[in-house]
Amino acid sequence: MEAAISQFRKACPFLHNKSTTYLRNLSRMPAHAGFSEAGNVRGNALISMAQKCPVMGKALAIQSKSYLHTSARLAKQPTSPLKQASVIQERRDTTTHRNAYSYNQQQPVVHSTNSQHFDYEALYKVELDKKHQDKSYRYFNNINRLAQQFPKAHTANLQEEVTVWCSNDYLGMGRNSKVHDTIQHTLHRYGAGAGGTRNIAGNCALHLQLEAELADLHHKPAALLFTSCYVANDATLSTLASKLPGCVIFSDASNHASMIQGIRHSGAKKIIFKHNDIQDLEAKLQSVDINTPKLIAFESVYSMSGSVGHIEKICNLAKKYGAITFLDEVHAVGMYGPRGAGVSEHLDYDLNARFPHNNNGSVLDKIDIISGTLGKAFGVVGGYIAGSAALVDMIRSYAPGFIFTTSLPPIIAAGARASVQYLKESTKERVMQQLNTRLLKDRLTELDIPVIPNPSHIVPVLVGEAEPCKVASDQLLREHGIYVQSINYPTVARGEERLRITPTPGHNETMTDHLVNALETIWRKNGFKRVSDWKKDGGRAGVGTNDPIPKPIWTDAQLRAAIDPSVSIINQRNTSISAY
Amino acid sequence: MEAAISQFRKACPFLHNKSTTYLRNLSRMPAHAGFSEAGNVRGNALISMAQKCPVMGKALAIQSKSYLHTSARLAKQPTSPLKQASVIQERRDTTTHRNAYSYNQQQPVVHSTNSQHFDYEALYKVELDKKHQDKSYRYFNNINRLAQQFPKAHTANLQEEVTVWCSNDYLGMGRNSKVHDTIQHTLHRYGAGAGGTRNIAGNCALHLQLEAELADLHHKPAALLFTSCYVANDATLSTLASKLPGCVIFSDASNHASMIQGIRHSGAKKIIFKHNDIQDLEAKLQSVDINTPKLIAFESVYSMSGSVGHIEKICNLAKKYGAITFLDEVHAVGMYGPRGAGVSEHLDYDLNARFPHNNNGSVLDKIDIISGTLGKAFGVVGGYIAGSAALVDMIRSYAPGFIFTTSLPPIIAAGARASVQYLKESTKERVMQQLNTRLLKDRLTELDIPVIPNPSHIVPVLVGEAEPCKVASDQLLREHGIYVQSINYPTVARGEERLRITPTPGHNETMTDHLVNALETIWRKNGFKRVSDWKKDGGRAGVGTNDPIPKPIWTDAQLRAAIDPSVSIINQRNTSISAY
Repeated sequence: MEAAISQFRKACPFLHNKSTTYLRNLSRMPAHAGFSEAGNVRGNALISMAQKCPVMGKALAIQSKSYLHTSARLAKQPTSPLKQASVIQERRDTTTHRNAYSYNQQQPVVHSTNSQHFDYEALYKVELDKKHQDKSYRYFNNINRLAQQFPKAHTANLQEEVTVWCSNDYLGMGRNSKVHDTIQHTLHRYGAGAGGTRNIAGNCALHLQLEAELADLHHKPAALLFTSCYVANDATLSTLASKLPGCVIFSDASNHASMIQGIRHSGAKKIIFKHNDIQDLEAKLQSVDINTPKLIAFESVYSMSGSVGHIEKICNLAKKYGAITFLDEVHAVGMYGPRGAGVSEHLDYDLNARFPHNNNGSVLDKIDIISGTLGKAFGVVGGYIAGSAALVDMIRSYAPGFIFTTSLPPIIAAGARASVQYLKESTKERVMQQLNTRLLKDRLTELDIPVIPNPSHIVPVLVGEAEPCKVASDQLLREHGIYVQSINYPTVARGEERLRITPTPGHNETMTDHLVNALETIWRKNGFKRVSDWKKDGGRAGVGTNDPIPKPIWTDAQLRAAIDPSVSIINQRNTSISAY
Repeated sequence: MEAAISQFRKACPFLHNKSTTYLRNLSRMPAHAGFSEAGNVRGNALISMAQKCPVMGKALAIQSKSYLHTSARLAKQPTSPLKQASVIQERRDTTTHRNAYSYNQQQPVVHSTNSQHFDYEALYKVELDKKHQDKSYRYFNNINRLAQQFPKAHTANLQEEVTVWCSNDYLGMGRNSKVHDTIQHTLHRYGAGAGGTRNIAGNCALHLQLEAELADLHHKPAALLFTSCYVANDATLSTLASKLPGCVIFSDASNHASMIQGIRHSGAKKIIFKHNDIQDLEAKLQSVDINTPKLIAFESVYSMSGSVGHIEKICNLAKKYGAITFLDEVHAVGMYGPRGAGVSEHLDYDLNARFPHNNNGSVLDKIDIISGTLGKAFGVVGGYIAGSAALVDMIRSYAPGFIFTTSLPPIIAAGARASVQYLKESTKERVMQQLNTRLLKDRLTELDIPVIPNPSHIVPVLVGEAEPCKVASDQLLREHGIYVQSINYPTVARGEERLRITPTPGHNETMTDHLVNALETIWRKNGFKRVSDWKKDGGRAGVGTNDPIPKPIWTDAQLRAAIDPSVSIINQRNTSISAY
C-alpha cells in the first residue's frame, strides 16, 4: 500500500513534488490567508488545493452530498443572494471539510429559482464579499491626467484638480510634443485602428519600423510587438517553455503576475528562487540536470519595491548552468542607460554610450530575451520582446496571444516609436526624474517617514496595514489634492501595504514640498509608524533593518556627466547633484 | 494490478476520461497530422501526448538516454543548425518512440558549444523548419491602409497602391471623421497613454463612459474593458470557470483561439460540441449533472466561415440545463442590429429598434455574457465583456489579465466610444456593407467561383490547398493590385484553405468588378476548382454540397426599411435591394 501511495504521488502532478511535511502543514493552514482576518476559516489550504484537482474536487463534492442534514437545515434560511452568502459563510464556519459551493440534489445551498440549477449570481456575490471582507476590494479612483498641466489631473469633478504622484508615465512622454505630432500625422494618414491581425491586413511599415527600433535599442537582432507587456510576458514564456522539452523555469519570487501566468500556462516545471538571492538561485540551478533546458525569469526594476535584479550575476549563472535568461525591463526602459534601454544597458553606461549598438561586449549581449513596455516611461501603450532572430520568429509563429489578436493601431506604433527615438537621444528627462526621486527620498528620510530602501526611481512608503493605507491615500486625495494609490494585497504581501510614489521630471520643488508636508500631516494625524518604530519591531520590507542602503543605479558621476550645464531644468533645482 | 491501473487512470488528469480504444488509436496516429504530408512521422500521437505529462515526459526523456548507440552515430553528422535540423528529422524517422529533442550526456543531438548544455537556437530553428515544411510559415504582407483613400493602401513601396479586400475594419470606422476628431481632441487634453493600470492612475472618466456605453449597447447592467478581445475572452473565461466549482464548459468546435485559451487556462473540464449542432450540444448537456455549473461558449459570426451561431436555441438550452452563456460577438458588433449590438440584437430587430434599452424582452436579455471588440467594425482597438453587475465586478476583481496591465489610452477609449455612439445612430454603413457583400457573393456565384455559403458579411472563397491559396493571394497582390490574405492552417482546417474577402461600404462597383475579374483570371490560369468541381468530389466546407443555402441575417425587408431613400450611397448602386 505504501508503494502504491508512492506511485500515486509520482503520477499526480498536484502532489508529485510535495513532501509529506508540506502537505501536513497545508492541512493546518486556513484555505485563504485573508480569511482568518475576518475570523472565518474556510476548510484548510490542503482541501482548497484538493478542490482544484479534477479527481479530488469531484470526490470532495460527492462526499459533501452526504451532509444532507446540515444542508437541509441551512437551506431553510432566507434565500436572497446576500442572505445566501451569509448562509454559505456560516456553513463554512461549521463544516470546514467540504467544498464551499458544493451541492446536494435535494437542497442546494447555492441555488437559483430552479432549485436544481446552480446559482451563478450568488457565487459572484460571495466572491466579491470575500474581497470586501479581506479589504482587497478595489475602488478605482477617477483620475483624468491633463496633458497640458502634467502632472496634474482632474477627478470626477472637472473643477477638482489634483497632483498625480503615482503614474507610470514616469517621464511625462504621454504629453511629449513629438509623440503628439506623430500620432496626429499618423491618424490623418493611416487612421485609428490596424484593422486586422499582423497576418491579415494589420501589418504595416510602422510596426516593422518600431520593431527594428526596439531591437536596436536592446542590441538584439529582432523584436516583436504585442498589445501589452502583460501579453508579451504571458505569450512568450508560455510558448517558449512549452516548446523546450522538459524545461525548468527558475522564477524570482517577486516576479510580476504576467510572468507568473506565462509560466503557469506553459505547463513547465517552475522553481521559485528567493527574491534577488543569487545563492538560492545557484543552489536551485545545481539541483537540475545540466543538460535540461532551463529558463531564468526575472526583472530589472521590481515595480512595487523598487529593488533591482542582479542582471550580470544571473547571466553568468545562466551561462554556467546552460540556462537562458528572460529579463523584464518594463519599469526600466526609457529610464536607465545612455539611450534608455534599461538597467541592463546602464550597467555598462560608458561603453554603451560610446558604442551604442549590437555586440559591443556589454552585459546586454548576455541576456537572451528582454521584455519591455511602451506604456510606462514611453508614455503610450503596448509591449514587446527582443532577442535572437530565431527566437523571435518562433514566438511570432507559434504564440496564440500574438497571432490571433488585432495588432496595435498605426497611431500607437508611430507614437511609441517617436517616444523611443526621442528618449534614445534625450537624457534630461531621466536625469531630472532621478534628481526628483533623490530629493523626495531624502526629504522623507529626514522626517523618519519609512521609505523602503532601493536603488531605483520608485519611492515606496511603508504603511504596513490595508485599511490605514487606503485611509492615507484617501486623505491625500481629499484633504491635500494629491493622488497616490494605496497598494494592498495581492499586489504586495499583507503587512507590507504601501503608498507607491513615482516622481517625474514634471514634479517641481513646490509640489515636492506639498507632498512631503501632506505625508507628515497624515503620519502625525493617524499615528502611522516611522522608521524608528519599525526598527523597534525588528523592521519590515527593508525598513528599520540593518541591511545596507543600496546605492542608486544612476551614480552621482553619471548624473553629472549626463547633464549639459546649459540645460535649464537642472538650474531650476539650484542645488548640486551630490546633495542627493 | 488491473485494479491499480484503473485507479491510476482515475487519478491521472491526462487519462481519466480516455477510453482504451481511444488511446490505442492515438498510438497509430502520427504525432502531428501535418507532418505526414512531408512524409515524416515523429513518434505517434500517444507519445506526443505523453511527452506533455510532467511524469511521463520525464520518463520518456530518461528512456531515450539508453539509446546511446544510435545517438552517437547521429551525432557524427554535421552540426550547423540547419544540418542539425535534418539530423533530428532523420532520427525521428528511424526512432519514433523517443522525445525528439531529448539528449544523452555524451553526445546531445541538439547541442551547443558547451556540449552539456541544451542548444536553444537549434531548437528554435527546428520549430521554424516545421512551419516551413508544412507550409504554415507566415510571411506578413506590408500593408499600409490609407485613411483618406479607404479601402486603398500602399505596400512597402510608397508608390504601389493596392485595394484592401480583407480588413476587419468592416465599416471603415478607422477613418471616420468623428472618431478622428475625438482622438485629436483627447490627445491634446489627456495625452497619449493611460500611464497606469485601472487601479493605479489609469482609470479615467473616458473608460467609465465607454463601459457605460457598451453596457447600454448590449442591454446589460455593466461592461468591462480589456486591452483586446483576445484578453477579454481569455481572462473572463479562465477566471469565471475557475471560480465555478466543478464547472463544465461546452465549447463550439469552431470557437476562436482566445476562447480556447481561456477555457484551457481555467482548468475546467471542456466538452466540445459540433459546430452549430444543437442536437449534439443538448446531448452533451444532458450527460452532465443538472446542478453542476455549466458554461456554453460560442460565437455569433464565426470569422473564417461566416457561419452564425444559433443564439436563441442555445440560450433556451442553457436555461433548460442550468448553464450560463458566453457569446463572442466580435465579428458582429457594429454590423448587425438596429444599433450595431450584434446578431443577438438583430434577432429582434423591430423590437430593439422601438425599445432600444435594457429588459425589453428580446433575446439579448437571455445571454449572460457578451464579449466584443473595438478593433474591427468599431475601427479602433480594445475588447470588452458585458454582463450582470456582479459578474463584471467579479472579473474586474479577480482576473489578472485585467488587473495587472496598463489600461487603454484615453485616446483609444474616447475614439472607440465615438465610434460606438456613431454606429448606434447610423445604419447606412452596415446596410451598404451588406449590399456590397450580396453583390460580391452573387457575382462570384455566377462565375461558379466557390464561395462558402453563409448568412453573414464574410465572403470565404475556397481554394482547398495551402500553397495554391498563397499563390492566389500573391497573384492578386502582384498582378492585380488587390490584397486578400490567404488563410491557411492552423486558422482553418487543412484542405479548407481559403481567401477570406470582407467587403466594406467603401468598395464601389468598379472595385468589385476588378476583384471579380481578377479572381476569374486566377481561377482560370491556375485551374482552381469551381463549385461544380467540388460538387463532383462530394463537396467541401459547404461548397458543392446539397445543404440549403442559409438566408442572410439582414433580410431584404430589413435592408429596405433601414435605408432612407434620400441617402446617396444607395443610389450609387442603381440596383434594387432584392437583386442580391
